[in-house]
Amino acid sequence: MPEIILSVNAGSSSVKISVYETNSSATTPVQLAEAVVEGLTAPPARLNYSRGDHRTKGQELEHVSTQQEAFRHILDHLARDEGLPQLRKKEDIHFTCHRVVHGGDFPHSQVIDDDTYHRIAELSDLAPLHNAPALSIIEATSKLLPTAINIAFFDSSFHHTLPAHISTYPIDQTVARRNKLRKYGFHGISYQFITSAVAHHLKKPTDELNIIALHLGSGASACCIRKGASYDTSMGLTPLAGLPGATRSGSIDPSLMFHFTHSAGSLSHESTATMHITQAEEILNKRSGWKSLTGTTDFGKISAGERDEDRLAFDIFVDRIQNYVAPYFTKLDGKVDALVFAGGIGEKGAKLRAAVVQGVKCLGFELDEQKNEEPGEDVVVDISKDGARYKTLICRTDEQLQMARRVLEEPERFERGRREKAK
Amino acid sequence: MPEIILSVNAGSSSVKISVYETNSSATTPVQLAEAVVEGLTAPPARLNYSRGDHRTKGQELEHVSTQQEAFRHILDHLARDEGLPQLRKKEDIHFTCHRVVHGGDFPHSQVIDDDTYHRIAELSDLAPLHNAPALSIIEATSKLLPTAINIAFFDSSFHHTLPAHISTYPIDQTVARRNKLRKYGFHGISYQFITSAVAHHLKKPTDELNIIALHLGSGASACCIRKGASYDTSMGLTPLAGLPGATRSGSIDPSLMFHFTHSAGSLSHESTATMHITQAEEILNKRSGWKSLTGTTDFGKISAGERDEDRLAFDIFVDRIQNYVAPYFTKLDGKVDALVFAGGIGEKGAKLRAAVVQGVKCLGFELDEQKNEEPGEDVVVDISKDGARYKTLICRTDEQLQMARRVLEEPERFERGRREKAK
Repeated sequence: MPEIILSVNAGSSSVKISVYETNSSATTPVQLAEAVVEGLTAPPARLNYSRGDHRTKGQELEHVSTQQEAFRHILDHLARDEGLPQLRKKEDIHFTCHRVVHGGDFPHSQVIDDDTYHRIAELSDLAPLHNAPALSIIEATSKLLPTAINIAFFDSSFHHTLPAHISTYPIDQTVARRNKLRKYGFHGISYQFITSAVAHHLKKPTDELNIIALHLGSGASACCIRKGASYDTSMGLTPLAGLPGATRSGSIDPSLMFHFTHSAGSLSHESTATMHITQAEEILNKRSGWKSLTGTTDFGKISAGERDEDRLAFDIFVDRIQNYVAPYFTKLDGKVDALVFAGGIGEKGAKLRAAVVQGVKCLGFELDEQKNEEPGEDVVVDISKDGARYKTLICRTDEQLQMARRVLEEPERFERGRREKAK
Repeated sequence: MPEIILSVNAGSSSVKISVYETNSSATTPVQLAEAVVEGLTAPPARLNYSRGDHRTKGQELEHVSTQQEAFRHILDHLARDEGLPQLRKKEDIHFTCHRVVHGGDFPHSQVIDDDTYHRIAELSDLAPLHNAPALSIIEATSKLLPTAINIAFFDSSFHHTLPAHISTYPIDQTVARRNKLRKYGFHGISYQFITSAVAHHLKKPTDELNIIALHLGSGASACCIRKGASYDTSMGLTPLAGLPGATRSGSIDPSLMFHFTHSAGSLSHESTATMHITQAEEILNKRSGWKSLTGTTDFGKISAGERDEDRLAFDIFVDRIQNYVAPYFTKLDGKVDALVFAGGIGEKGAKLRAAVVQGVKCLGFELDEQKNEEPGEDVVVDISKDGARYKTLICRTDEQLQMARRVLEEPERFERGRREKAK
């Protein structure tokens, strides 16, 4: 019997849900529909919906201003869609996959029960800004979808292979252990997808794959993947470290915040049931990045922009990316299967790709201009110049699909989930 | 007539003074004596003194516990030394050079008068921990040496050539401008020395020299020197950013401090006339680094150590250094005259050099084991393997000599200083 999987990806101002159909003999889930509610922080929220050729764009939603409301709205929308006979009622949903940013020490996804919910909520102290959207939806799922098996997938899990000398911060180790202060890394669901897709494309076993992967979106990171596993990555204890993003500073002098304002360093909590943030973290995560330089979060506009501040933001991003590509090249000892661009900006930013690759040309990377400008729609596209020493690829990463796939690939989790639901 | 120059290098627990003799026809100052008072933070302080073959080691000093007291003690010691006839009385000192860590926007050294003293004191808000020792001595100099011309040399000045896309932090630009928040970079007096010495060694004009320079001491940094000028460097707004040091964390997730303790983020001022520091900055600058991992600040011991924590600290340092060497290689577009090791650990740490070079072997660096183990005493030593694509050098950097040299090289500063003293 076919089963229905929802993959839920909640951000600070949006909720994206993909609907997949699968059955035990299928090797990959088939996408039936996708719904995105955007603009939660800039009302009215709007719904984009696609199913096959059917498309709804920018439908304004009244009374939807939180992640929970968006989630509920999408569930109703899916159940009412007559073109989606596989999902008539909420009980038709067998699995709900939730992307959770910070998974602490969890090396794998977790079937969510009361115990794991509380553990996830607890570790979210490490990244309250980032985990809050997913937590609020997970909280609602047990009421809205009482028969579905809920699974949390963590952006940090892929990086549980980081060696100690890379994950350890040289700080007081008693405090580090007590407060779990180390490099975790994020975007791991995406890096897992990229690793599988690129290995498939290059016809290499995953555990022999060495790549430098760049997930560049409004949040951006780099990952050194050695033998198919994360060896180093740019984000740290939280997603703030590393590359700058749309509203995120990335790595700066750790002293900077103490010189930012006279009050920024003080912990001014904005507490809600699931949020507990400091003003300083809010400034660095939400009021910095290229928005603070150019006034826009749209990197496409910055990339095409002619103003000094556009060029500055563009050059800063290229420079900081180069700061990760080059050391990861040496950490792979020059045995690099590919430099891989992924994420919204990685996929669409031809000018950015050209500038990054130009920056590391001396290592042996070179683009084919034509392929870089018109890479087509394949999941993995080779944009390297003929004869370049190393390959450069674009990978259309898909976190929702990656989560749904894991449901197929990890049958033991099915079983555990089923047993518990049957109790 | 010969002139006497003192070069003063004050750290948080030591004061080092070198005495030079020079005259207008000389091209380089000649060192007459060197005095170091150590252990100001671990009394009793001790004096090491050398003049020619004469040496005093570890002489315990009662009643010396501050930088000012150490400075005064050394001045008395020099005036009383019968083997130093050039310096019989304090009036024999013509120039006093002070190494000041943070020079804000000063692109050059400054003759210190009331005005520049106050400007230096003001900008020290950016680096109170780092500027305090020098400031307290500068404050004393006008009383103790009323006839000497005082010059402040800044560790940040060499980096005034950083391009905007490297020195700019992607944060609120109004705040950044108001509070002067940008990458400054430090160890510049040393990098200036290294640039001159390596250019001389390679027989290249300084403004054609491309090197990756590493100043590795209890404070450690890296610098990408392009055409003889600083193009990028690892330290930032303050010396905290970049590489870890003896008691310094280096770059960490900027959010980390907000998860360190519940009170660390609050600005708990320890104010004295010249200090104004936060608990958080104190923790990251003074209670982190390899001391926090291993219990010792002595990198030689760590390097030779067999404990897990010694290996971890060693591997962390190598890894973080690699994170700068590789991108600087690409920023020089592979046109690299040399990778240069300097500073106490850079000069003495054969095992560290071997590990760092091994880490970037794929770029074309390779050491001659024998030369690396026994590099001799020259100012610049080539330790590259024969046939290595790129050179690796050791440079015995000397900040005191560099400052004294500038007194010879910048005669206009002599004149300005003389005019003002004559008033």
